[in-house]
Amino acid sequence: MPAIEGPLRDRARDFFQTLQDTICEGLQTGVFIEDLWSHPGGGGGRSRTVQGGDWVEKGAANFSAIRSDITPRLSEKMNVRTGTIFATGISVIIHPVSPMVPTVHMNLRYLERDDGDSWFGGGIDLTPCYLFEEDARHFHRVLKVACDKHDPRWYPRFKRSCDEYFYLPHRQESRGIGGIFFDNERADPDRFFLFVKDVGASFLPAYMPIVTRRTGETWHDSEKRWQLVRRGRYVEFNLIYDRGTIFGLETGGRTESILASLPPEVRWVYGHRIEPGSREEALVQVLQTPRSWA
Amino acid sequence: MPAIEGPLRDRARDFFQTLQDTICEGLQTGVFIEDLWSHPGGGGGRSRTVQGGDWVEKGAANFSAIRSDITPRLSEKMNVRTGTIFATGISVIIHPVSPMVPTVHMNLRYLERDDGDSWFGGGIDLTPCYLFEEDARHFHRVLKVACDKHDPRWYPRFKRSCDEYFYLPHRQESRGIGGIFFDNERADPDRFFLFVKDVGASFLPAYMPIVTRRTGETWHDSEKRWQLVRRGRYVEFNLIYDRGTIFGLETGGRTESILASLPPEVRWVYGHRIEPGSREEALVQVLQTPRSWA
Repeated sequence: MPAIEGPLRDRARDFFQTLQDTICEGLQTGVFIEDLWSHPGGGGGRSRTVQGGDWVEKGAANFSAIRSDITPRLSEKMNVRTGTIFATGISVIIHPVSPMVPTVHMNLRYLERDDGDSWFGGGIDLTPCYLFEEDARHFHRVLKVACDKHDPRWYPRFKRSCDEYFYLPHRQESRGIGGIFFDNERADPDRFFLFVKDVGASFLPAYMPIVTRRTGETWHDSEKRWQLVRRGRYVEFNLIYDRGTIFGLETGGRTESILASLPPEVRWVYGHRIEPGSREEALVQVLQTPRSWA
Repeated sequence: MPAIEGPLRDRARDFFQTLQDTICEGLQTGVFIEDLWSHPGGGGGRSRTVQGGDWVEKGAANFSAIRSDITPRLSEKMNVRTGTIFATGISVIIHPVSPMVPTVHMNLRYLERDDGDSWFGGGIDLTPCYLFEEDARHFHRVLKVACDKHDPRWYPRFKRSCDEYFYLPHRQESRGIGGIFFDNERADPDRFFLFVKDVGASFLPAYMPIVTRRTGETWHDSEKRWQLVRRGRYVEFNLIYDRGTIFGLETGGRTESILASLPPEVRWVYGHRIEPGSREEALVQVLQTPRSWA
């Protein structure tokens, strides 16, 4: 049970660890394999992965709480000052079997520098291969409710941050249909923690109704192929741009856990073309011009 | 026909373009699709790709000659001064169908700054999924002969640079069994061009005898799966570390041509294990401890 008092770092860590249990259970995709590991700088993590699950082709729900040095090189890349940092967080990524069920990603993290400066970061976002507007609206509405409870200005701000962050300049498209993303928010961390808890609690209600709705949807080889091509873009984003991936690899994090986010099977096709007027084109149009969904 | 006189930039460009013809022909894998494109900053390229070739699952031989601005951001990443730069080069990458036939990569480039400073860079390297020592020795010997003709110190130096460059710190292994790699060599560019020509001419003799030898080798699904996992490491290197990829994407290069280097089909398996004493382990040992081959 999470402590109700004590240092924020302990309460954040306990919350993320409990949330990992709740999410693995709530995903209803069979047994996750657990790996416990320790970090060279101190602390460690609990990685849980599933491969070949009931409806999940590959998924990970990773918890960690580590201590690490911010090198000058990392400081520059991540835009944080050098020194020692405590970082705890949870990362969830689900790559479903069906191309009709979207990939989902959540990361929530708490960082505390040795000079006492501390902040939360993270977000939730959705990456479909086929656009179901109903799903996009549902997903964003759940996140908007979580934001509005705390500050009505937050959803529009964090929605925009999400569209900006999950963007592939070399493809001129977003990774998916967005969600919310926040980082370096300088509100009182103790108050902000209440918001982070609500975001964490939104994960299953935002995602699972979509899974239930789309699991019955039929699909064919050509749609699976499209999913594998779209997964290529996912890999490109994570390896070229994602700050979490860079932070993890640069701080000597556990490579297998960090790269557990990568999809199980991927294709890169040179000059892949999509049919005008197709469902594939409908998705790409939304990725090129982010829409309001809530 | 390449000009025998005139500015080095023109002679380098002509050489790379002719070499592209020679290599596409010499690979004997059926018809390459050609795409001509122009670069926003000036110049352009001729991309040639094959997908589903006779023995090549996906391959590219790309020529380009462009003019581009070096932004401060790029200057820092690539360790070159800001200003305008002329860049011409050829990139070849071959992902064979058979896991017994290694992936090969060659890049040769000539860069010239607007202040007249100019240099060549590039190299050739081999990435097998299964180790055949005979192949590794043949490959390195051909490259050593090309180097020794110009300077006996070059092969050891460029071999070491190759091992250092094609290294994945987060996996603690090399991308492949190496080859040669050189960059920012400050020898007289006109003399160095003679060496670059010999390297380009070495590509087919270094690689094709290996293709011929290994094409008949039988393989099974489990060996194909291993190939797909190894290709994941290839993607990781190219997207996280490769300066050529970063340079291309950052200078607004043609994304499809730059990422034509990515393999056609890839797998990421969480916690992938290899059998002790297996052929897979024999490869990984060599990747963890680069050997002398020539």
